[in-house]
Amino acid sequence: MSDSVYTIGIDYGSNSVRCVVVDTRSGREVGSAVWNYPSGEAGVLTDPANPHVARQSPADFIAGIEGAVRPALAQAAGQPGFTAARVIGIGVDTTGSTPIPVDASLVPLGVKPEFRDNLNAQAWMWKDHSGMAEAEKITRLAARHRPHYLAKCGGTYSSEWFFSKLWHCLKVDRKVFAAAYSWIEFADFIPAVLAGIRRPEDVCCGVCATGHKAMYCEEWGGLPDAEFLARLSPAIAALRPRLCQKAYTADQVAGRLCPEYAVKLGLPAGIAIAVGAFDAHLGAVGAGVSAGRMVKILGTSTCDVLVAPNTTKLPDIPGVCGIVNGSVLPGYYAIEAGQSAVGDIFNWFVRCVCEGDSRLHGELTDQASALRPGESGLLALDWNNGNRTILVDARLSGLLVGCTLHTTRAEIYRALIEATAFGARRILDRIEEYGVKVSEVVNCGGIAEKNPLFMQIYADVLGRPMRISGSAQTCALGSALMAAVAAGPAAGGYASAEEAQAVICTFKDKVYRPSPDRQAVYEELYGLYRELHDSFGLRRKKFDHYGVMKSLLAISQRVKSQPAATP
Amino acid sequence: MSDSVYTIGIDYGSNSVRCVVVDTRSGREVGSAVWNYPSGEAGVLTDPANPHVARQSPADFIAGIEGAVRPALAQAAGQPGFTAARVIGIGVDTTGSTPIPVDASLVPLGVKPEFRDNLNAQAWMWKDHSGMAEAEKITRLAARHRPHYLAKCGGTYSSEWFFSKLWHCLKVDRKVFAAAYSWIEFADFIPAVLAGIRRPEDVCCGVCATGHKAMYCEEWGGLPDAEFLARLSPAIAALRPRLCQKAYTADQVAGRLCPEYAVKLGLPAGIAIAVGAFDAHLGAVGAGVSAGRMVKILGTSTCDVLVAPNTTKLPDIPGVCGIVNGSVLPGYYAIEAGQSAVGDIFNWFVRCVCEGDSRLHGELTDQASALRPGESGLLALDWNNGNRTILVDARLSGLLVGCTLHTTRAEIYRALIEATAFGARRILDRIEEYGVKVSEVVNCGGIAEKNPLFMQIYADVLGRPMRISGSAQTCALGSALMAAVAAGPAAGGYASAEEAQAVICTFKDKVYRPSPDRQAVYEELYGLYRELHDSFGLRRKKFDHYGVMKSLLAISQRVKSQPAATP
Repeated sequence: MSDSVYTIGIDYGSNSVRCVVVDTRSGREVGSAVWNYPSGEAGVLTDPANPHVARQSPADFIAGIEGAVRPALAQAAGQPGFTAARVIGIGVDTTGSTPIPVDASLVPLGVKPEFRDNLNAQAWMWKDHSGMAEAEKITRLAARHRPHYLAKCGGTYSSEWFFSKLWHCLKVDRKVFAAAYSWIEFADFIPAVLAGIRRPEDVCCGVCATGHKAMYCEEWGGLPDAEFLARLSPAIAALRPRLCQKAYTADQVAGRLCPEYAVKLGLPAGIAIAVGAFDAHLGAVGAGVSAGRMVKILGTSTCDVLVAPNTTKLPDIPGVCGIVNGSVLPGYYAIEAGQSAVGDIFNWFVRCVCEGDSRLHGELTDQASALRPGESGLLALDWNNGNRTILVDARLSGLLVGCTLHTTRAEIYRALIEATAFGARRILDRIEEYGVKVSEVVNCGGIAEKNPLFMQIYADVLGRPMRISGSAQTCALGSALMAAVAAGPAAGGYASAEEAQAVICTFKDKVYRPSPDRQAVYEELYGLYRELHDSFGLRRKKFDHYGVMKSLLAISQRVKSQPAATP
Repeated sequence: MSDSVYTIGIDYGSNSVRCVVVDTRSGREVGSAVWNYPSGEAGVLTDPANPHVARQSPADFIAGIEGAVRPALAQAAGQPGFTAARVIGIGVDTTGSTPIPVDASLVPLGVKPEFRDNLNAQAWMWKDHSGMAEAEKITRLAARHRPHYLAKCGGTYSSEWFFSKLWHCLKVDRKVFAAAYSWIEFADFIPAVLAGIRRPEDVCCGVCATGHKAMYCEEWGGLPDAEFLARLSPAIAALRPRLCQKAYTADQVAGRLCPEYAVKLGLPAGIAIAVGAFDAHLGAVGAGVSAGRMVKILGTSTCDVLVAPNTTKLPDIPGVCGIVNGSVLPGYYAIEAGQSAVGDIFNWFVRCVCEGDSRLHGELTDQASALRPGESGLLALDWNNGNRTILVDARLSGLLVGCTLHTTRAEIYRALIEATAFGARRILDRIEEYGVKVSEVVNCGGIAEKNPLFMQIYADVLGRPMRISGSAQTCALGSALMAAVAAGPAAGGYASAEEAQAVICTFKDKVYRPSPDRQAVYEELYGLYRELHDSFGLRRKKFDHYGVMKSLLAISQRVKSQPAATP
């Protein structure tokens, strides 16, 4: 153990910060800790008058560094062979796009006394949809004037993204907008704090956030040009020189641990701080993403991450949120997709409709497990929080069809799981239509480990083996992994992310495999899902849905008339 | 009081029999009683293997005569001036189409020992949908060979109707079909029992059941011709001579009270037994239906009844279940429409989704009353039990759209009420398109008396005043009213139904009137309802529904941004 070296991964989620300390020679986690955001409702600041507002406190973000790292190190200190002196780097991942308005000294406006109680001065959380109108305008402007910008982000600019949020702030709160010297992505902000950076201009931006959410691309010289931004507003164009000028991959060094934080954390000053990236992206790295092996991060929402070698040019894929060179693994295009609500839909049903507590998930899952595919006659659209991929439309909503006078809550619960699976399938189909093959899926997140019904439905609907990541903390693990690459072989780290993955990433033994019988029923249901998906989601395709309810009924009657299969 | 005369109305509902004893000179109810069917689940016999099966025991029907009439008479006996000797007639209404297979002595097969446990030998309840496939075939055959048959019943023959049920029985249970000498409608069966009729050929059939559910019309010589019936099956054509040959209006005499039942009930033998009719139709008479005044019977399902003078020929109205000359008021065409589930949908939601008891209706109603039209962003289709009018399609199902992660059960509950109101509006629009004007609606049933939220939503959606019938027992009252006409002026009764209505029918003081503000929002929502109604319900109309979710969201945001109106 004496030659072990360690890295730290810090993972900022929606409600808490998690830290892991990883032995980079074995992948073993020698310490970990979670720190919950103290502000708002589990860290989220909401506006009772506008359900689309979701903000977070940057003070929570800063406090979370010590809050999570110190107890994780304390735990690691109990492990044989560990000393803080052998920590060679820190990696950071966060949610996003979560822009933070900052002053010229990189102080977030939200921590300053004059703005502390102003929601618009806080971090604009990924799931904030208040900029829906602005997103639509950006999409229209880009479609007309810079179609190549849109092509890289799936044809539609989202309300969840960087410029929609900045522009909305400009419209609703000029005071905050004027006070913001710059806007820094959460994922770039934390490494800058660790590195003691004091000017927004010196922040080392990750290609992940800026490439996926801010239309950054080296092909066209970085961020959108000033002429285009001026079409949004001259005030936004004026910001451009103070926003990201060059973006880096997460295996690069964003800075070196500054003395202040070296003392605060009890770590060697000067160790590598890796460039920050989104939780989902580093989670994919930690879960073992590679060509043909998609990683799906299952939570309240989901994120799908795929990679394709950048040796041949990848076509733009309509409706896929982002294709960015190097944003997950250096040397590969990263393809990011995702569903705006998955676990959140089941939570909504249990909490708001059934008015049950979290135990009801277990009960409903047990009951739903006794049902066969198609038996309920129900079909749902999984759009309770809009559709992120491939329609990129926050103004969509959930739909349930096939209700009779006998439909049970367990049947609805299962239909909601199936709906999210069909949504996942639609994404996968679209990506494969553009030549990126997917032969298996590695899943991360609590649902993957705890819900066999969910996993089996997904295997049957997607028609591919569903694996589960060996680590439950893939995001933090991926951050730690990238820290080992940023630190480099000279410091005892790795020369490439693939090399590090080969050592650090593992899978659980249990694999969920599709069954041809169930697949066949789900093929039929998926055809109907496609019909509703396209009719409610697309502008140009016309349908009569005369057959939908009849087909659902016929499938249900057929399934019920068949003898129950052995499970 | 000494010159008062009385009639008895017996009303067979889905779960119980109700009897009223009415003073025909004042309309006052001097006695009433309810008798619950002892068999099955609240009188309904179901098949766990097939949710479309709904049967009832004919033994319950027969037992219900004494079960309801005797206690009602006992109660009346306590009233000053009443004696059983002054009862001049009995009227009967029942649910339907509820065909009962009988032997050559008019004994229902279901009461005979060899068939007592056979569901197919029982009465085939109105809501039995097991003959869906047969209904579709009858529709296709009639469309091809006898289009005029279909024109009278809205263009589609329903699975709830007479021949669908007979044909389905022939397909699934030849033994029962072969043992059935004839099939008698429930509404015709009870008067025949009271009159001591012993041969199916002697049963006096009501035009109501046979005209609305069995394609009977004097224009074409009664029931469908044998050549057509042979296209269903020669076995059905062979039945024709033993089915209804001539049909009568409910003001006619079906027979005279036989000595056996005179003794059993303690009534004078030989008093008039009126021709039977459906509960909804005689309920409409009891509620005061007249030209321009529609009657809506609100219950688990609903029935809308309108009349138009038969002095000018009424065009066929597509999708309207039945237009029959004289089936409600002699001298008027009756137009019957209805929704296959209304109260049943709210019951489903409370029981099967919320898993609450009946008190939850009150809670949800209170919460839903605090919402404004459009506020929830939800829209539903009220087809959990199919659509009876104007689509006439049992293979439709319920749909809910507009769900977010915040949608509450009270919002869904309100959306379900609104959906039934939109369904009601669609029916009303269709009927008015064909020249039958409706200036007000009289409502009967528990919902009308107990649920102001429901009534106000209906007033706002239908854009017409909603009144409530003065009597809570309009069906039984209408039966008693028709008994007074059947008995005639010579016996102390009336010469016409209108004359009797002028004395007997009353309204409650409370009238629900539409408000222009709420009407305007509901107009918008109704436009979206129409779009979904036509797309899921019709074969030929094509839509993209791209705007539906967006419009619902926009309406919701607009409503929420408006100051709350004073209630």
